[in-house]
Amino acid sequence: MDIQSLVRELKTPNDSKIVMLVADGLGGLPLQTGGPTELEAADTPNLDALARKGVSGSMYPIARGITPGSGPGHLGLFGYDPVKHLIGRGALEATGVGFKLGANDVAIRCNFCTLDAQGNITDRRAGRIPTEQSAPLAVKLREIKIPGVEVFVEPVKEHRFVVVFRGAGLGGNVADTDPQRTGVPPFEPVAGDQESKKTVEVAGKFITAARKLLADQPKANALTMRGFSARPDISTYQEVYGLKAAAIAVYPMYKGLAQLVGMEVVGAASTLAEEIDVLEEAWNDYDFFFVHFKYTDSRGEDGDFDAKVKMIEQFDSVVPRVIELNPTVLLVTGDHSTPAKLSSHSWHPVPTLLVAEDSRRDRCESFGETEALKGALGHFDAVELMPLALAHAGRLGKFGA
Amino acid sequence: MDIQSLVRELKTPNDSKIVMLVADGLGGLPLQTGGPTELEAADTPNLDALARKGVSGSMYPIARGITPGSGPGHLGLFGYDPVKHLIGRGALEATGVGFKLGANDVAIRCNFCTLDAQGNITDRRAGRIPTEQSAPLAVKLREIKIPGVEVFVEPVKEHRFVVVFRGAGLGGNVADTDPQRTGVPPFEPVAGDQESKKTVEVAGKFITAARKLLADQPKANALTMRGFSARPDISTYQEVYGLKAAAIAVYPMYKGLAQLVGMEVVGAASTLAEEIDVLEEAWNDYDFFFVHFKYTDSRGEDGDFDAKVKMIEQFDSVVPRVIELNPTVLLVTGDHSTPAKLSSHSWHPVPTLLVAEDSRRDRCESFGETEALKGALGHFDAVELMPLALAHAGRLGKFGA
Repeated sequence: MDIQSLVRELKTPNDSKIVMLVADGLGGLPLQTGGPTELEAADTPNLDALARKGVSGSMYPIARGITPGSGPGHLGLFGYDPVKHLIGRGALEATGVGFKLGANDVAIRCNFCTLDAQGNITDRRAGRIPTEQSAPLAVKLREIKIPGVEVFVEPVKEHRFVVVFRGAGLGGNVADTDPQRTGVPPFEPVAGDQESKKTVEVAGKFITAARKLLADQPKANALTMRGFSARPDISTYQEVYGLKAAAIAVYPMYKGLAQLVGMEVVGAASTLAEEIDVLEEAWNDYDFFFVHFKYTDSRGEDGDFDAKVKMIEQFDSVVPRVIELNPTVLLVTGDHSTPAKLSSHSWHPVPTLLVAEDSRRDRCESFGETEALKGALGHFDAVELMPLALAHAGRLGKFGA
Repeated sequence: MDIQSLVRELKTPNDSKIVMLVADGLGGLPLQTGGPTELEAADTPNLDALARKGVSGSMYPIARGITPGSGPGHLGLFGYDPVKHLIGRGALEATGVGFKLGANDVAIRCNFCTLDAQGNITDRRAGRIPTEQSAPLAVKLREIKIPGVEVFVEPVKEHRFVVVFRGAGLGGNVADTDPQRTGVPPFEPVAGDQESKKTVEVAGKFITAARKLLADQPKANALTMRGFSARPDISTYQEVYGLKAAAIAVYPMYKGLAQLVGMEVVGAASTLAEEIDVLEEAWNDYDFFFVHFKYTDSRGEDGDFDAKVKMIEQFDSVVPRVIELNPTVLLVTGDHSTPAKLSSHSWHPVPTLLVAEDSRRDRCESFGETEALKGALGHFDAVELMPLALAHAGRLGKFGA
């Protein structure tokens, strides 16, 4: 069953407010058998109090055993089937540097590379050219004009940059031009369908013009293109849920993901405390607030258990300010687990909390992975979280008579 | 979502070893309300220690309320949707007697029957002719030669035997010839599609030849054919999971089921201890080991609670030898429940255990149906077990960026 279609039919607007606090990579693992996870080791009096008041559960971002990237992880949280709604690599890269993709855009991940005099690749990453040198080259490529389309070029990092073509009739089905080896020239772009022929033509012109502009460069004298992708065709929060939604995040990637589902990015916070400032200021203007906290994931990726514990404690410390706003439904969750033990995203379920006046109760005494096993939310999939939130907010009508 | 397709995309080979110990019909029921199940009554110190170390859960072979046969039960455990991948009756019967079906085979369950002088059926089972009499007759039918195909005949039991035709262009869509009543002749075989016309032609020739060979028999003077089925079109463990898989079993049926998904049958064990010998000997040659123990199911089918308890204790006693091999992931489960109280397979979930370095913890103190309700694996479907095993073995990449 496609639960989102059902929700779309049943949505019933009201004046409720829903807050979704996302601690990126929240779930963890014990360092030793029998020990606590990061969340269990952390001193989290505010989250523990919420766990006693609300209901807990174990949430699967995609499915059992599947480790999500940030894109699918967030789409699931937002209630969109992350396997059906794939975000192309190019679209994700553009989103990640804060580029707001439009409906007529095709986004492409590009690499600077090095060609020899015969036009064969000698280095697929232009010697991993430092960002200080590559960014000005990417900016220089903005000089390229192609009739009938708008061209955007955004530096990313080292040899990577992103190109967006904007115009009618640009399909996203184009094969990569990176041959994945040296000693041969880059491939010509090739269309995978009729709709992408114009994209190939535009890409060809861009490549030719770029090689002229880069001809005198010692390393980055050409480029390869990968992950051609149109903006994913996703309905908005307004269309699906009837929610006017605000996204509060520090990192461009998460702002971009929220924009893809029609959230408005509000504020320009650079710390968690500032994010809560923005939440307070925007409180009267939106129905739904996605608040993203990055550093739980970052410290997990670093493999630093204690630092992740501290980040969770920092996250806990802002909870009273959120409660003060008296949201109808408060969700506390993560987009996936990032156990410090693994220094990477993982497949483990994410401890999740829902607090609302009309929630059932359970016997969880604190917020944590093991305690959540007793929780009233049980084991559930990320795409089920938004329907639960809407129901507890009184925003879903009855199905059938 | 088809989780197996996702897994297939994400598979990442490494050197890990996965062991799946299957105690057939493991799950049980208390004889009296409030009493223990067979597994709970058994003294299982080794499995209990594993439960404290790993994670437990309640596994549904097909879906809640559905009682599986051995075929679907094992397909689910192996990670193949058992409703989508139906094994035809003929294929299962052939598999059950250890016949290795090929891609160009059609397998058919046959019954010896008795016809009167007018060619009408007087006994659909040839008086339940004893196996000692029917097996030589089945072997005699091997004399039948049909141009363009190979013919195999295998005795089964009493009036039952199996016929396999091997050749190009043999479809499996042919109606049963057993009219399900006496006083009428057997039906002629009829093709359900274009691809099965050649099969009908071959079957007709076989029936005619067989009736000549059996003409002087007092009881088994003819046959009916049922459950025509081609080899199920199933991808192998290698293709789906990137696993080189070994099957260790005593009974032909389970060897056959494992072969259908591309496992190699190793050894010729006739006891559980010998199965573990084979496991030890084959340890360096495979990535995945399916070890099947039959007698928990057999004693459950007998309705003998105490004997099933003893079989579970025997199963427990070999666990230390498996642990000694230090598998990356150890699974302990069953293909379904077979409560002695019901003397049959049942729909109840199967207590299941996963032990791995990177599993979460839960608060289960022993291995059993009631204790597993507290487990970190929660309630899950059999097809989710392989993805979980692969994830814990580090054999699945990240989904999306």
